[in-house]
Amino acid sequence: MTEIAVDSERLWATLMASAEIGRTERGGLRRLTLSDEDKAMRDLFSRWVMQDGYSLTIDHLGNMFVRRRGQDESLPPVLVGSHLDTQAKGGRFDGILGVLAGLEVLRTLDTAGVETRRAIEVVNWTNEEGARFQPPMMCSLVFSGEESVAWAHDRRDKEGRRFGDELARIEYLGEAPVGGRPIDSYFELHIEQGPKLDEAGIPVGVVTGGYQMVGMRIMVRGETAHVGPTPMHHRQNALVGASHLAVAIDDIGWRYAPEDGKTTVARLDLAPNLPGIISDEAQLYVDFRHPSSARIRDMEQEVRAAVTEAARRSRTEIEIAEQWGFGGLDFDSDLAELVRSTARRLGVPFTDIRSQAGHDAYHMAKVCPTIMIFTPCKGGITHNEREDIDLEATIPGVNVLLHSVLARANA
Amino acid sequence: MTEIAVDSERLWATLMASAEIGRTERGGLRRLTLSDEDKAMRDLFSRWVMQDGYSLTIDHLGNMFVRRRGQDESLPPVLVGSHLDTQAKGGRFDGILGVLAGLEVLRTLDTAGVETRRAIEVVNWTNEEGARFQPPMMCSLVFSGEESVAWAHDRRDKEGRRFGDELARIEYLGEAPVGGRPIDSYFELHIEQGPKLDEAGIPVGVVTGGYQMVGMRIMVRGETAHVGPTPMHHRQNALVGASHLAVAIDDIGWRYAPEDGKTTVARLDLAPNLPGIISDEAQLYVDFRHPSSARIRDMEQEVRAAVTEAARRSRTEIEIAEQWGFGGLDFDSDLAELVRSTARRLGVPFTDIRSQAGHDAYHMAKVCPTIMIFTPCKGGITHNEREDIDLEATIPGVNVLLHSVLARANA
Repeated sequence: MTEIAVDSERLWATLMASAEIGRTERGGLRRLTLSDEDKAMRDLFSRWVMQDGYSLTIDHLGNMFVRRRGQDESLPPVLVGSHLDTQAKGGRFDGILGVLAGLEVLRTLDTAGVETRRAIEVVNWTNEEGARFQPPMMCSLVFSGEESVAWAHDRRDKEGRRFGDELARIEYLGEAPVGGRPIDSYFELHIEQGPKLDEAGIPVGVVTGGYQMVGMRIMVRGETAHVGPTPMHHRQNALVGASHLAVAIDDIGWRYAPEDGKTTVARLDLAPNLPGIISDEAQLYVDFRHPSSARIRDMEQEVRAAVTEAARRSRTEIEIAEQWGFGGLDFDSDLAELVRSTARRLGVPFTDIRSQAGHDAYHMAKVCPTIMIFTPCKGGITHNEREDIDLEATIPGVNVLLHSVLARANA
Repeated sequence: MTEIAVDSERLWATLMASAEIGRTERGGLRRLTLSDEDKAMRDLFSRWVMQDGYSLTIDHLGNMFVRRRGQDESLPPVLVGSHLDTQAKGGRFDGILGVLAGLEVLRTLDTAGVETRRAIEVVNWTNEEGARFQPPMMCSLVFSGEESVAWAHDRRDKEGRRFGDELARIEYLGEAPVGGRPIDSYFELHIEQGPKLDEAGIPVGVVTGGYQMVGMRIMVRGETAHVGPTPMHHRQNALVGASHLAVAIDDIGWRYAPEDGKTTVARLDLAPNLPGIISDEAQLYVDFRHPSSARIRDMEQEVRAAVTEAARRSRTEIEIAEQWGFGGLDFDSDLAELVRSTARRLGVPFTDIRSQAGHDAYHMAKVCPTIMIFTPCKGGITHNEREDIDLEATIPGVNVLLHSVLARANA
């Protein structure tokens, strides 16, 4: 018997339509959460799913759920999805592929006239990226019950605009409650965002879990002073303190690189940050990740030692003002085995892999059995306008998603 | 014969009135050029000088000239002054003391009924600090004929507001042309902004000239990428490049510190500067100064080598996008000798000193014989809300200014 398969041209057409909304000069995407571009993409996605006859539910956080009915509507649905928002300088596939692959799964089932026992829903999570409102993966966090809707509504962007107000402005403040209903299982297909699958020429990564990530906001306090006459030994330059720390943290990343650990200094905010005066405040955002939750404790100790040493060398005061983390979790082993067996049946090469990025799937894993499928991205380049995929290397993964979801929806 | 002397209480009253306009919580001043606070201070200063019967002229850049008539009005005036604007986190005396000491000189002559052969003018230069519109010392630069009024009007602040528009908004776009008239001489009294006089307990520094200053805007270019999965060896983090450079430049400052050289990394602008994505652009502003113009060339070579090394270590592209400088000049030796002999006559201890900060006097030195007088500031703390002076240690310098100006105005 021939297996049903997704329509690669139809999927590509939706990806390329998305690639026009928030397109940057260099061919990437800038579609920040709750921006006009986000609204335009949501509107287009809504039109598509309404035209196809699916029902669309929007919750209090703007999370969008597209439902294809099941034979037994009393059963919890299988959920498939990802996000349609992007980074400030983002690519055309990060998140977007997962949502539109979900839509393609629904369309393929319709084209083939296949009914399923359980309903299948496709979700577009609001604000996965956290590029405008922090934290990332904010709305799946609330869906999982760990934070409240009111808390999310009160998040503010750099300009002080409130998440709840912006959500209302783009007309995606929906009526449905956030979470609190049974979900059978959650599937998220995503580009790998690393180079492993691309370099190995393997189209499917079965994501068994996530790297442990630790984030820190580190505060450096110095003294303002004139950049001219102030002798070197009278200075407490917050930028010098932050720079010593940034270099040390980058060095830690290199030391852990052989075991696939990494560190990032991703953001630095200075005040007053003017040419004629030494800055007395610096806030450095640090991110470090490691496949092993045990080894991340060692990294954390090294970062703490670097804080002390940078303070000593720059004669500033440095403290870890905030610390958070995610990952360090395993996805559902039964679903992992379902994906592997599906790939085997379809003759698609696959490998087990662990996610190094954050994903809404991390929060969904607290709600229901959850699995992710990675597909290759060229050179591992992501969060970059040059982010790209090879459609032929992607379609096998989308078919694995289709048949895994189909099997689960009929189980 | 008893020498006439300034009224220290009257001078202090004007300084403390100024200290209320733009006062910060920590007791400093934030009175950025062409802000509402700048307007309020200018308005107060205008009322004072009009009440005292002086004529006030405002030029196309808002520079304010307060004229006390001379016996021979055909002679070029002696000019005395400094600036009333402050840094973003500034002190109560930087610049302000020089303008209000000038006003006190005029008032003292009036009180004593002393006429002078030449007119004496007190100037408040617009935008000495460059904290809002760059460059600093902008309006004395135009006064000296090296840039045009139109160029100055087109400068923009971080929010994109035009200098000319803001000048009109606060109603200090005057009728008088900028410069182009003969000036006999320029005297500027200023707090030292370094610790030397304060530490030595000497009330007067005869400023024989200025340190050489070199400024650079350095551009670091990397690649955006995801902070998670991107392997260390695929990263080109502009913040890491800028941090290596900042540390190296600070180290250069320490190596030259024994000969009173210094380096500053004072401002760093990053893009996109968000937590989840590696920044691909960094602009670092560098400032280095040295008493010797020859040695500053050596420092520049070390900075250039640091640029190459930082680019290599961070695998980013780094280039010096812009370079500028000031200082490295000598003030008028006859005026320096006049100030020394005046101090000797008044029994005021003095020492020769060189200025490490930029001052409007640097540009005036191209127009007419120019000299500066430094008075102590506590601990050398400046461009800081804790900037402070001891009035008793300041008054001797103001009297030296009074008698030097008087002698020159009668010469």
